[in-house]
Amino acid sequence: MEEIRWDERGLVPVVVQDFTTKDVLMVAYMNREAFELTVKTKKAHYYSRSRKKIWLKGETSGHFQKVRDIYLDCDFDTLLITVDQTTAACHEGFWSCFHRVFFNKGWKIVGKKIFDEKKVYGKT
Amino acid sequence: MEEIRWDERGLVPVVVQDFTTKDVLMVAYMNREAFELTVKTKKAHYYSRSRKKIWLKGETSGHFQKVRDIYLDCDFDTLLITVDQTTAACHEGFWSCFHRVFFNKGWKIVGKKIFDEKKVYGKT
Repeated sequence: MEEIRWDERGLVPVVVQDFTTKDVLMVAYMNREAFELTVKTKKAHYYSRSRKKIWLKGETSGHFQKVRDIYLDCDFDTLLITVDQTTAACHEGFWSCFHRVFFNKGWKIVGKKIFDEKKVYGKT
Repeated sequence: MEEIRWDERGLVPVVVQDFTTKDVLMVAYMNREAFELTVKTKKAHYYSRSRKKIWLKGETSGHFQKVRDIYLDCDFDTLLITVDQTTAACHEGFWSCFHRVFFNKGWKIVGKKIFDEKKVYGKT
């Protein structure tokens, strides 16, 4: 673990890939504590830069990520984790957070809605 | 394009995924100019944070990335591009930069060497 090069905020970006489909689901950030919790529990934990605290992915929605493997890149500053994703990853109800594709100089939504985010997260 | 939320440095992280195998190859950064060059040429261009300049992936090695699609995430601050990777992505000679896996509290190399990086990049 000591090989990870945390940035000046103590964070590293984490690419999250579905183990089975190999779809890239999201990118989030971990600090050392989130990394240790992830290793210990096998459930993905991240550090929220906006809320400035650790979050267990799925703590509100139930959409947990069971971690299969954790990879480190050649610069030691980015992680890739493969996960079994419950239901869907995106808080907007899509399977993947990457549901907009560049098309004709703009962005077009291509992902399918899996769940109603208003029912899962409430309207606030 | 205007929807991209560039960070305080004018950059966004870019996840690079092989179009055919769906392997995650690397994470790099783009500024607006790198993004525009990528869209225009269909070859992946990035911004090097260490060298502080635009680089065309493959300019030294010949290992270009032909871009298939460009995705934007739900927070508008991270890109995912799918590419046809020539030879291999990692400057250390591996197919993917994510060739270390967390194992027994340390990191174990699991990727296969594809090319000899000393021959491609020289010894410096």
